[in-house]
Order: sequence, then structure tokens, then C-alpha cells
Amino acid sequence: MSQRRLHVVGLGCGDPAQLTGQAVAALRGAAYALAPRKDRGAGDDPLLAVRRALLAEVAPGLEVVEVTDPERDRSARVAGDAAAYRGAVADWHAARTAAYERVLLERPGDVALLVWGDPAFYDSTLRIVDAVLARGAVTAEVVVVPGISSLQLLAAAHRIVLHEVGQPITVTTGRRLREAVDGGADNVLVMLNASLDLAGLEDWTIWWAANLSAPSERLVAGRVGDVLGDVLAARAAAKAEAGWVMDAYLLRAPGA
Amino acid sequence: MSQRRLHVVGLGCGDPAQLTGQAVAALRGAAYALAPRKDRGAGDDPLLAVRRALLAEVAPGLEVVEVTDPERDRSARVAGDAAAYRGAVADWHAARTAAYERVLLERPGDVALLVWGDPAFYDSTLRIVDAVLARGAVTAEVVVVPGISSLQLLAAAHRIVLHEVGQPITVTTGRRLREAVDGGADNVLVMLNASLDLAGLEDWTIWWAANLSAPSERLVAGRVGDVLGDVLAARAAAKAEAGWVMDAYLLRAPGA
Ligand SMILES: C[S@@+](CC[C@H](N)C(=O)[O-])C[C@H]1O[C@@H](n2cnc3c(N)ncnc32)[C@H](O)[C@@H]1O
Ligand SMILES: C[S@@+](CC[C@H](N)C(=O)[O-])C[C@H]1O[C@@H](n2cnc3c(N)ncnc32)[C@H](O)[C@@H]1O
Repeated sequence: MSQRRLHVVGLGCGDPAQLTGQAVAALRGAAYALAPRKDRGAGDDPLLAVRRALLAEVAPGLEVVEVTDPERDRSARVAGDAAAYRGAVADWHAARTAAYERVLLERPGDVALLVWGDPAFYDSTLRIVDAVLARGAVTAEVVVVPGISSLQLLAAAHRIVLHEVGQPITVTTGRRLREAVDGGADNVLVMLNASLDLAGLEDWTIWWAANLSAPSERLVAGRVGDVLGDVLAARAAAKAEAGWVMDAYLLRAPGA
Repeated sequence: MSQRRLHVVGLGCGDPAQLTGQAVAALRGAAYALAPRKDRGAGDDPLLAVRRALLAEVAPGLEVVEVTDPERDRSARVAGDAAAYRGAVADWHAARTAAYERVLLERPGDVALLVWGDPAFYDSTLRIVDAVLARGAVTAEVVVVPGISSLQLLAAAHRIVLHEVGQPITVTTGRRLREAVDGGADNVLVMLNASLDLAGLEDWTIWWAANLSAPSERLVAGRVGDVLGDVLAARAAAKAEAGWVMDAYLLRAPGA
């Protein structure tokens, strides 16, 4: 018997046409798919519906085993306590690792682990899989299947290259944007935005997008000082329309 | 009649299974494809053969109009004269813009402009297309079709996430690596390497790859001081095997 395979599959951001042939083959060839599910209490996670519609189109019949994530403790993050934040992330990783191990032990076969966008950017699936394998009970070969990331869709929607000719780009989170700017970065791509704080950056140029690939997609571009109001309004409108909002943006310093 | 479309299509790095459904549709629906061709004098550009094999599989019959690039003046770059380098790039952009405009005026229909990897990273096609449209003679709608970038393939081949949890990543060129390191970046993805100079970074960790997706693909990972010899040998071996070498790597500072 050949070795069991765990495919970590980048799904893009909801549009079936964004999947690569390799991703479609991994999904169709899997005994089942494994995916996290945020516990939202009463309401359903609206992104689950997007994922379900996507899979119904490209891999009909594929069973998705959803593992419910414990609600993460965000108090440490809000308080800005880095050690407590790392501790909360570690607890949450351990819980998800145990849950994934349980499913993989109970259910044999090749598995597709579903990842939003590309597994290389701000996603924990590979770390969880490594942790599961390190425990020793599950044996498998891990195959990573790249997917179209939201940062590529941001660039495509605005029809831009992410950097000036031969120049660097810093990819970071909303929480750490200030560090990048203070460190001299003049071309910054920002993901994972709890909120938008661009005070003092009025003369920078922004290319912003929310809910890329969804019907609720919104795009705004311009000088921050001129378009910040439009961005905030578009963000609220996307959230109202879809029930969820995820946004990302490129910021470029004046004269960069 | 509906408006003419120029699809700027990310092709991935040579593996047909890396193409998205959207890319395949754009290629199959195009009247012809347009692509640059480096003038190498006598010998053929070996990457052209890779591209031809890819297209023969996913869009057989698609005609590729190749526009020969003038040999770029690299003396300024070597001399480190930034203004002269920008001037050389500008001349070369102007020449390619004129050549693309000529083809687009002579030959009607929807066009697929072929891009290696993803159009968002270190590629000039979008700038050339903008320059052509700004001249006013060609009118068209530009649609960007994201592709799997070499940086995603690097991460996938090594089965890594490109950054530590919630941390930033700097994407830059070999020429500007030192600036990133001096500026405090501790997680750097490096593309466009004329050569490899990692002196002083012996304690950093490197995840390196050449010719990703090609039969000549090579991977090396480890502490720079331990594996640099392996990297240089693998780079030479990839070049000897394929006749070309393109490499990229992630560098992470000790304790980052
Ligand atoms: C946990 S990260 C996952 C990123 C994902 N692995 C990728 O490659 O896009 C989630 C962040 O990605 C960005 N994002 C994901 N999907 C998006 C979308 N459809 N539109 C805009 N931004 C999106 C947002 O910044 C969001 O906070
Ligand atoms: C002009 S840039 C184009 C990048 C491309 N747009 C992308 O998204 O990958 C060329 C650089 O990309 C990287 N690259 C492209 N193809 C590669 C491959 N197959 N293996 C390793 N690196 C590659 C190398 O750093 C190379 O110098």
C-alpha cells in the first residue's frame, strides 16, 4: 500500500475558477476533507457557506469534516500583552492539533486539508499538521498545493504590480503596520485588519479591497487622506451585504 | 461588439497542473498570445521551451506571438549607478511598449499576455500594458488573471508558512537584500538573484530552491553556515541540467 497523503490545499478566495488543476485533483481524490470551523455560538460562520458552494461546484460529493475551534482568547491581544497572546495562540494550536489527530486516526485515507487563499500566508494548517505528525500516532506524506492568495487577488483587482521596479515589499498585519512604517518600509501590504488606523499616513497611496471574489467585493484606491472615508463606508457596506468582511490593502509612501 | 480584452495571465512556473481554471479559459479564448522573448543571439532562450510545452498541453493550437526584447544594458546595474539603471529600464520599457503596440494594432481580437508566475511580483507586463493604453491607439479592457508565483512554490516545496505567527515578511531582490537586513528585517524572501552573497548571515536559516516545478528542481534548507556549499553546488547542478537557473529563498534570522 502506498503512503497516506495529506494534501494541504489552497482554495483561493471562493471563486471556483481560481482553483488550480492540482487543487481540483487533490479535492476529488481525497477520502474526505478536513477544515476548521469557528464556533460562533448561535449563528453559522458565513464563510462556511462560501466554502460549501465552492466545493459543491468543483468536488461534488466530497465530505467535509468540520472541526470546531474553541473560541480564541483575544483579551491578551487587545491588551497588547505579547507573552499572553503567544500563550493563547499556543493553547489554541494544541486544541486544534488534538482534534485533527483524532479525526485522522478515526478515518483513514487521503485527506484534503482546506485552506483559504494560499497556505504560505497567515495560515496555521501546516503548523498544525507538523504538530500532529510530531506526536507520532499519524503517519503520512504532506503535499502542499498552492492556491491564489488574497494578496494576489488584491493586485489583480486593482491591476497593479505589488512593488515599484526592483523595490521591496513588506507583508504584515494591521497590528504591526506601525512597526513597518517606523522601520522605514515605504511599500506595505497589510492583512488581518481588526480595524483601520491610518492616522498620519494621509499622503500615502492606498489600494484597498474587501471580500475579494465574493459578490460583496469592494475596491477603493487613492490618496489615503482623500479616500479613507470611502474605505470605511465600503468596509461597512461589504459587511452589511455579506455578513462578514475581510480586507487587505497596499500602502505606498509618497514619492516611493 | 463587446470590448476587446487583454488578459494578463499568470502561468505559474511551468507545471500545467498549476494553472487556474480562469487562466486556462483565458488562454483557450484568446485569438493569440503575446510574450516577450529574450534575444540570446545564437542559442534559443531555454525558458521558451518550457512555456511552449506548457501551452501545448493546456491550450493546443494557441498561436504565440513572440516579441524580441532588446538586450538590456546591465552595465549601469553592475556599476551600481541607480540613475543610469533607471534610465536603462525606461529605454527598455519604451522599446517593449512600442513593439507590443505594433502587434496589438496589427492583430485584432482578445489577447493573452503571458506572465511567468504571478503578474503581481517582479513582472513588467502590467506596466507595459498601461503604457500602451496610455498612448491611446489601442483600446481594451485589462483583466489580470493571477497565477501561482515562484514564492508560493518555494513555500510549498519546503512545506512552510512564509512567516512566523503574525510576523511580517519582506520580499526583495538579491541586489537589495543587505538593505533589508540592515533595516532590521528578520524574515526575508529573496528573488532575482544574479549571485548569492550571504557573508555574515551564517547563523540565519535558509530555505532555498531553484528551477521549481521543472525536472531540474533543487531544494536545500538549513543553517546558512552549514548548507551554503550545498546551495552553490545545487545551483550549478540545476543550471548544468536545464541550461538555465532561477532561484529564490527565504532567510530567517536566528531567534526570529
Ligand atoms: C488568516 S489570513 C489568511 C490569508 C490566506 N491564507 C490568503 O492567502 O489569502 C486572513 C486575512 O486574509 C485577507 N483576506 C482573506 N480573504 C480575503 C478576501 N476575500 N478579500 C480581502 N482580503 C482577504 C484579510 O486580510 C484577512 O484578514
Ligand atoms: C522576473 S522575476 C518573475 C517572478 C514571477 N512573476 C513569479 O511570480 O514568480 C524572476 C525571479 O523569480 C524567481 N523564480 C521564477 N521562477 C522560478 C523557479 N521556477 N524556481 C525558483 N525561482 C523562480 C527567481 O528569483 C527569478 O529570478
